[in-house]
Amino acid sequence: MSRRSLHTPAPDASTLRARLDRARAAAADAATDALLIAPGSDLRYLIGQAGGSFERLTTLVVPASAEAEPILLLPKLEAPGYADIPTDELGVEVVTWVDGDDPYRMVADRLGRPGRVAVSDTMAALHVLGLRDAVSDAEQVLAGPILRQLRMRKDAAELAALRKAAEAIDRVHARMGEWLRPGRTEAEVGADITEAIVAEGHTHADFVIVGSGPNGASPHHDVSDRVIQPGDVVVVDIGGPIPEGYNSDCTRTYAVGEPRDADVADTYAVLQRAQAAAVRAVRPGVTAQEIDAVAREIITEAGFGANFIHRTGHGIGLDVHEEPYIVAGNDLPLEPGMVFSVEPGIYHAGRWGARIEDIVVVTTDGGEPLNRRPHELIVLPA
Amino acid sequence: MSRRSLHTPAPDASTLRARLDRARAAAADAATDALLIAPGSDLRYLIGQAGGSFERLTTLVVPASAEAEPILLLPKLEAPGYADIPTDELGVEVVTWVDGDDPYRMVADRLGRPGRVAVSDTMAALHVLGLRDAVSDAEQVLAGPILRQLRMRKDAAELAALRKAAEAIDRVHARMGEWLRPGRTEAEVGADITEAIVAEGHTHADFVIVGSGPNGASPHHDVSDRVIQPGDVVVVDIGGPIPEGYNSDCTRTYAVGEPRDADVADTYAVLQRAQAAAVRAVRPGVTAQEIDAVAREIITEAGFGANFIHRTGHGIGLDVHEEPYIVAGNDLPLEPGMVFSVEPGIYHAGRWGARIEDIVVVTTDGGEPLNRRPHELIVLPA
Repeated sequence: MSRRSLHTPAPDASTLRARLDRARAAAADAATDALLIAPGSDLRYLIGQAGGSFERLTTLVVPASAEAEPILLLPKLEAPGYADIPTDELGVEVVTWVDGDDPYRMVADRLGRPGRVAVSDTMAALHVLGLRDAVSDAEQVLAGPILRQLRMRKDAAELAALRKAAEAIDRVHARMGEWLRPGRTEAEVGADITEAIVAEGHTHADFVIVGSGPNGASPHHDVSDRVIQPGDVVVVDIGGPIPEGYNSDCTRTYAVGEPRDADVADTYAVLQRAQAAAVRAVRPGVTAQEIDAVAREIITEAGFGANFIHRTGHGIGLDVHEEPYIVAGNDLPLEPGMVFSVEPGIYHAGRWGARIEDIVVVTTDGGEPLNRRPHELIVLPA
Repeated sequence: MSRRSLHTPAPDASTLRARLDRARAAAADAATDALLIAPGSDLRYLIGQAGGSFERLTTLVVPASAEAEPILLLPKLEAPGYADIPTDELGVEVVTWVDGDDPYRMVADRLGRPGRVAVSDTMAALHVLGLRDAVSDAEQVLAGPILRQLRMRKDAAELAALRKAAEAIDRVHARMGEWLRPGRTEAEVGADITEAIVAEGHTHADFVIVGSGPNGASPHHDVSDRVIQPGDVVVVDIGGPIPEGYNSDCTRTYAVGEPRDADVADTYAVLQRAQAAAVRAVRPGVTAQEIDAVAREIITEAGFGANFIHRTGHGIGLDVHEEPYIVAGNDLPLEPGMVFSVEPGIYHAGRWGARIEDIVVVTTDGGEPLNRRPHELIVLPA
């Protein structure tokens, strides 16, 4: 009946309390009467625990007004899983409900008559529409744009966790030669990587992409039963969360013996130059889209613009993909403490692909890559 | 960047096509112009693949009108992962979008001016509100009540898959004596069970509850570092999906040596009687709440009504929890092909708990439990 362990390292109560206060203030700034937070990363960020995601409503109600206490509404059945949360120190009232109660009505009764409420971006439609009908006078908006103001600016403990995650995934990449060999399937290599991701300190592998030969040209490829051939170029994009909840995400491109395709060396050099230039361009005040443009211009000038079919990167933290997105149209100026991937790729459909990805922290005067494995095409024995 | 493998066994195209046609008809019956299906079990049910769940919109648009073709809208980046879907045979048009497009607007343009659209119960608020704003004249309702009419009536292949899943989890329970011993922590036992769940034919373990001693009194307990003691009663509730996507879910209660608490034997006998009576009560025409009442009355008459703190069961299929819920207030008459758990429990806070759970199929003239392990309290060596 249950899902994952709810018991995981959490920030101390004073850190969480400060986050709740900032969330309140951000809601007020956005003219929103309350935040309704679903289980997931937003909940973990605010009270230290992600909670479970069930058909039964669990929600943290954070009123914008400092007069009203936040309420954690949850099914009585699941209350023991939340026992570690320092609700007293956080000033959060726990309200439980049982099968047969109307939890949406319970939220509505607490809210009074709000004009606007914000729901977590991840809240399931089941609950979004349940709350819409119960709090029927209120306009529903997304909580994401409000909470991202907090979540995309990482504090020292968050940066330390992201650094730890990056070091763990670097150790996995360092061992790639143990597994990536001709004659093995992508799935076999992927299984070994999955095990190593856990062995090196992650709670689990969230994604394991082993894209060999033509499969490397599909950026969201996973693993397949394709047998790796001598001369294959192989994209390996892997990551997952460490116990603190923060994620790793790192891509390196390997060759199994000398690459079969004659254009690999020159094309890869362009990619490496583009990725390095984009990382070097990171500093406070530069916008997210400018970083994307730096990588894209180098790739486009070399004639591969049409082969770079995705944005340059995404923020990372408690979620693998979060703000800030490094994409055309995002004019957000970077600030110290923001963390995101820089991962341009060049894809030749039907033949091969390559991608290089580092997680980069914005510092006070530049950018610091957290992943430190070599960026060259790594040629393994065939 | 990716999540799980998208390549999994799927029903043949004619089965899927028939489901799409029934979904269309059910939408029309519900006076709904279109279903907007998010990645997840609903998508897998209708087109054979669950898809990924990302911040980029993926949705299957199923118009109620037989005049209009269903559309699978997805990010171009992720299109290769959907290549196995027989879209031509299904009459589904694939429409891709790239970063910078407005996918919500693309859906709205296809829909024209609908009066009412239904969104998957699991669709994230990010997309629910994006679609609300783009299709602004339409009332949004949940697709769950429409699709459950299809999904809760399992066909022969679905029943075969659920039977296979039940047999796999029964094999894990049969091996419990290898792992469940005094001196080991719940987490250690849980790790062994997790491995066995995969070894016996599941793709992964979705939940592993090992509730020893007082932890057994918390129905949604997971595992902890509690060391199992001689005399402990231990609730073991485990399951996960097999490659076909259908889930197992089975609870047995063990004792590690003779139970410490003197009231275990008598209380357990009541529970076993209640569970067996509820299973025996299953037949077409009986309502879901009547099954709940059968178990609850026996437990209540024995004086433990307040210790049975949850509903008697839940439907199971592509989701672990789905319709029909076996709960007071649900007057749905059972029909052949419906499948659900029958899992009463008795919980003594701070001391011990017990639960017995079988998955049961409604047949033409009764109910058939798919789980076949003994229902007695299973006493393992201390």
